[in-house]
Amino acid sequence: MKEPFPETPQFIYRRRIQFAETDMAGIVHFSQYYKIMEETEHAFFRSLDLTIMHHQEDGSIVGWPRVSASCNFEAPIFFEDDIEVRLAVYRKGVKSVTYNFEFWRDATRLARGTMKTVCCHFAHGEKMKSIEIPPMYRDKIQEDYRTDPA
Amino acid sequence: MKEPFPETPQFIYRRRIQFAETDMAGIVHFSQYYKIMEETEHAFFRSLDLTIMHHQEDGSIVGWPRVSASCNFEAPIFFEDDIEVRLAVYRKGVKSVTYNFEFWRDATRLARGTMKTVCCHFAHGEKMKSIEIPPMYRDKIQEDYRTDPA
Amino acid sequence: MKEPFPETPQFIYRRRIQFAETDMAGIVHFSQYYKIMEETEHAFFRSLDLTIMHHQEDGSIVGWPRVSASCNFEAPIFFEDDIEVRLAVYRKGVKSVTYNFEFWRDATRLARGTMKTVCCHFAHGEKMKSIEIPPMYRDKIQEDYRTDPA
Amino acid sequence: MKEPFPETPQFIYRRRIQFAETDMAGIVHFSQYYKIMEETEHAFFRSLDLTIMHHQEDGSIVGWPRVSASCNFEAPIFFEDDIEVRLAVYRKGVKSVTYNFEFWRDATRLARGTMKTVCCHFAHGEKMKSIEIPPMYRDKIQEDYRTDPA
Repeated sequence: MKEPFPETPQFIYRRRIQFAETDMAGIVHFSQYYKIMEETEHAFFRSLDLTIMHHQEDGSIVGWPRVSASCNFEAPIFFEDDIEVRLAVYRKGVKSVTYNFEFWRDATRLARGTMKTVCCHFAHGEKMKSIEIPPMYRDKIQEDYRTDPA
Repeated sequence: MKEPFPETPQFIYRRRIQFAETDMAGIVHFSQYYKIMEETEHAFFRSLDLTIMHHQEDGSIVGWPRVSASCNFEAPIFFEDDIEVRLAVYRKGVKSVTYNFEFWRDATRLARGTMKTVCCHFAHGEKMKSIEIPPMYRDKIQEDYRTDPA
Repeated sequence: MKEPFPETPQFIYRRRIQFAETDMAGIVHFSQYYKIMEETEHAFFRSLDLTIMHHQEDGSIVGWPRVSASCNFEAPIFFEDDIEVRLAVYRKGVKSVTYNFEFWRDATRLARGTMKTVCCHFAHGEKMKSIEIPPMYRDKIQEDYRTDPA
Repeated sequence: MKEPFPETPQFIYRRRIQFAETDMAGIVHFSQYYKIMEETEHAFFRSLDLTIMHHQEDGSIVGWPRVSASCNFEAPIFFEDDIEVRLAVYRKGVKSVTYNFEFWRDATRLARGTMKTVCCHFAHGEKMKSIEIPPMYRDKIQEDYRTDPA
């Protein structure tokens, strides 16, 4: 059985919380967690010399729209917090990639999330279409998870 | 077994998509769906003469932070789309309420989401604390779901 | 001399403030005022049967990027406030339109803003280029301001 | 006469543009520039060992709400651009501070903005009130501008 996270995080993104991300309850608004998961995914792509919006020579684009995303909020996050977001590739399918995320501030886990994305082709004036993950992505993105010893 | 949605939606929120909600892929950014679910919850509260941030006489506040939220994205949403968001109270617990949502544009279902919230007390200078749902909320919020006939 | 506003507002947009628009100071974040000015501009366009992103038959787009925008914040705006945003076309130039805005809650003026936009042509794969305002816009958008009697 | 910017920027903030900051025109949405000016101001405060939301021992807060903000947009900004935001304290008044900003990508100036803020006291349950800038801020924030030689 796959456990959601490897013992050592596959990729870490560090981030300071900005004032505009808070709401009148004094904490980071929950919709921001999804933006931060996406920022982490994009930073992970850059770490592999990839970009999430790949412009091809014919003017079309290969991108990664979301299929689903979820998040469990475990502890509030505050203005000027320095947080660490850990990413692990949980599953690399034929057309899709699923990521798990953990949000940490020092030794406190703040949230856990997951995001499933699908590789798509965007041609000008046409509907986007899911495609098999091209080699430039497939060769670099590696699954990494912890196997339950039981 | 509970099915996620009643045959007739319990509450409907109508909404036009704004330009600032789109991204460079030409569609509504996925983080906006969570804001729209929240707007729907708050409009539902107003429809019951309730508010999501209840200021009490002693200066403290009763609010509803999120425990978790998820969304499945089924079809893209575009600038100036008029969408309909349907809300159903899936479960009213002792301290928490879980909502299901469906996003529709005419006959096309665009997304399905769920959001679990917990009733909390915010006193000035103290940590927020989960509490039993007070009667003003408990009496008005009613579960509504479809029962699987099987 | 032109005064910034006509005696009777040219166009009015009504809007309820959402929770996600507030920040930890308990008021609407100042960056939201610019989004609300834009929403008002787009609603004004719709009232004239126009859209801010006009897709032409050849696949290119006529749009209205901003040249400048400013806002003076006179009174805070709060969650669930019902506000009224008044728009007046201050100047219709050859290629640009300048709007003035006032934000009101009942008899309290909350903010005053201005926004200058320029009509542009976006062809796929090319830089956007400013153009003379096409007749479909020019014929419908009318200046409206108060003349200083002095 | 004061020129808006010193020859050497007083403070520089570097920032990568995120996907969620773009809109369907393929460029950074204009409302984001105001958030980025604010981020720069807050980073400037941190560089002086200050915070924009100072919690005092009595539970009240000293903060800096905006009086006005404006921006001129000179060149579009794109996803994954690395930009540099330059801040200069244009005027330190008795109760207010006015900043000028310039946005740059390499040798291209992208935008120029200005923001006037006022020092305020927020006590629980009371209206915010403007105050004279306390010494902890006054001693560290220094005006810096270029004097027109003419």
